[in-house]
Amino acid sequence: MGVIHSRVSHFSFQLDATDSTSAGRAGQWSTPHGVVETPAFMPVGTRGSVKGVLPRDLRECGAQMILANTYHLALRPGSEVVRDLGGLHQLMNWDGPILTDSGGFQVFSLSGLRRLTEDRVQFKSHIDGSLLELTPQRAIEIQEDLGADCIMCLDECPPADAPREQILAAVDRTTRWAQLCRDAQRRSDQALFGIVQGGIDAGLRERSAEGLIPIDFPGYAVGGLSVGEAPPDMYRTLDATVPMLPVEKPRYLMGVGRPIDIIEAVLRGIDLFDCVMPTRNARNATAFTSQGAVKLRNSSHICDKGPLDPNCNCIACTEHSRGYLRHLFHVGEMLGPMLVSIHNLTYYQKLVRDLREAIKLNRGAEFRLAHLAATASEP
Amino acid sequence: MGVIHSRVSHFSFQLDATDSTSAGRAGQWSTPHGVVETPAFMPVGTRGSVKGVLPRDLRECGAQMILANTYHLALRPGSEVVRDLGGLHQLMNWDGPILTDSGGFQVFSLSGLRRLTEDRVQFKSHIDGSLLELTPQRAIEIQEDLGADCIMCLDECPPADAPREQILAAVDRTTRWAQLCRDAQRRSDQALFGIVQGGIDAGLRERSAEGLIPIDFPGYAVGGLSVGEAPPDMYRTLDATVPMLPVEKPRYLMGVGRPIDIIEAVLRGIDLFDCVMPTRNARNATAFTSQGAVKLRNSSHICDKGPLDPNCNCIACTEHSRGYLRHLFHVGEMLGPMLVSIHNLTYYQKLVRDLREAIKLNRGAEFRLAHLAATASEP
Repeated sequence: MGVIHSRVSHFSFQLDATDSTSAGRAGQWSTPHGVVETPAFMPVGTRGSVKGVLPRDLRECGAQMILANTYHLALRPGSEVVRDLGGLHQLMNWDGPILTDSGGFQVFSLSGLRRLTEDRVQFKSHIDGSLLELTPQRAIEIQEDLGADCIMCLDECPPADAPREQILAAVDRTTRWAQLCRDAQRRSDQALFGIVQGGIDAGLRERSAEGLIPIDFPGYAVGGLSVGEAPPDMYRTLDATVPMLPVEKPRYLMGVGRPIDIIEAVLRGIDLFDCVMPTRNARNATAFTSQGAVKLRNSSHICDKGPLDPNCNCIACTEHSRGYLRHLFHVGEMLGPMLVSIHNLTYYQKLVRDLREAIKLNRGAEFRLAHLAATASEP
Repeated sequence: MGVIHSRVSHFSFQLDATDSTSAGRAGQWSTPHGVVETPAFMPVGTRGSVKGVLPRDLRECGAQMILANTYHLALRPGSEVVRDLGGLHQLMNWDGPILTDSGGFQVFSLSGLRRLTEDRVQFKSHIDGSLLELTPQRAIEIQEDLGADCIMCLDECPPADAPREQILAAVDRTTRWAQLCRDAQRRSDQALFGIVQGGIDAGLRERSAEGLIPIDFPGYAVGGLSVGEAPPDMYRTLDATVPMLPVEKPRYLMGVGRPIDIIEAVLRGIDLFDCVMPTRNARNATAFTSQGAVKLRNSSHICDKGPLDPNCNCIACTEHSRGYLRHLFHVGEMLGPMLVSIHNLTYYQKLVRDLREAIKLNRGAEFRLAHLAATASEP
């Protein structure tokens, strides 16, 4: 009981408001490194760096919590090195909350030769082909070395088009591994989340949730979405899955997504998000704006003295012209990706902040319609 | 007389101190975009961006004046586009002084097929092979479009190992072109500098200076150094050249250089510098520190929790460890070049600031010896 009490005391989740027009909710999640206002979007610092953005600029974008990838950090520089350098917070100079995934997703999406058995997954590094393995216990051990506030159970994430039997097997293995992860956890200052799998099959999602909820995790993630399925399938799956999750605990939709996906998921009761899209699209010269997507390589911007987004207060929009940003991408200057990453992250943070306000005013459904009308050109 | 008076009134150069132990001097150069304390180092924004550094971070590094390259900007986005976007200051969001070179150096160093006649140089763009030409008049016209505070005459810059006759011809052509540039200048708010050529031949340097000084430029650049000659040859050439330049006008050593080169040149009476080295070396994982060069890819840094340079107050040194910086370069994260660019520029700005203070205290020679002792490992 002592350990369980201690685990609980480092975290608390409080609902501030629920939206009468949707299942959306606004909350506050207290962690050892501060409070996260939900719905929240976590910029992705894959290898211990949100690409192209200084930590202080990340804070200025409005980010409260960030994500780092266990798989990538375990390969380089290694979780022991991160631990010896003071843990992820000190390494990245980010004193707010951090979440790490379990490494499972990249093992299944990135690595080469993979051998999956009941108790472990062996894989070849995507970098040098060296052989590595993850067990539920090892995934927790690595994440305890990394030291994030929120950590994930090792799960099996099958592709969107996998046959039902494979997804069923993945659900059951994920449930068994979840208990092993829970048993392996030693640190009391990290919130360990269970991950609901089950593809786009409502019955399998139910089976997964029913397996995980008795383990009584302090929060639940929805995994295995945004892996190639059509958006309506994702939304239907959320319709079937989210109502099964405990109302008093934070819910995290992994790896999602486009602004409209975030809106749809928030209105279905999701609290936490992460996605590489704002920074990846920035490096590809595509900006999210209040008027839809802007492709900055387009020659129409050559002599444009106007801002990238007149409704944005980031430095890219207040200090530079579209013409300059276009020039930076045209000649390949890294300042282009840097400025547009700051902009896109600012856009995403404003999106979840505005969603939070809309929920408080019972205007979730209205917010969705206004977004659709304003951003018809969004990718 | 009116025009000349107007030209003069936008600029003034004031000597604050001269060093009793060397020919070093500390001054203040007033420009339409503010005062530059000399000796000064200008970070290089080749294509309208100091690579990897946001303008506000550039200011925080201590930079007072920056440089942009006419050749690169004339090719992309084109000088008319820069003009239409409000000029270089607005384009780059840099409200301090800016200097542009004439484009001559890159025409001779970068472009392919070149045809040099008495009144022009024709060349093929290094980007797409398109044919372009520069005349003295066109070089000024382009720089007036760009709108920097300080602009350069078109010069011919032969390689370090060119035969004497070629260097002599370049000197005389540079002198004739200098007069044509002066005659072509229309804007009164830009200081046009003459460029002394002559290779490492003291007699030719004298011939060049004697040709340019009667044109009465508001400042003089020393060009054609740091183009492959040995450092002692550069220093000897400065010994022969600088004393010929008017004491009451700023002196600019183009494209130099390593920290020790800057010290040697300041002690010989140079006021202004530019070089890509701090940012280029940063991208190659090499840092300038108070204890000499640090190669951040070195595995000795893997678990180093200490700062890159304990005597530096930049964000790379105060917010991150050597181990983190090493990791960023090891995995290829752009944050590595970003942070070390900020550090190296901060190092260079501190160097010229410390030199300025040393000169005021008549400790120039002492400063040089202390630097050599501390940085024995510098490249």
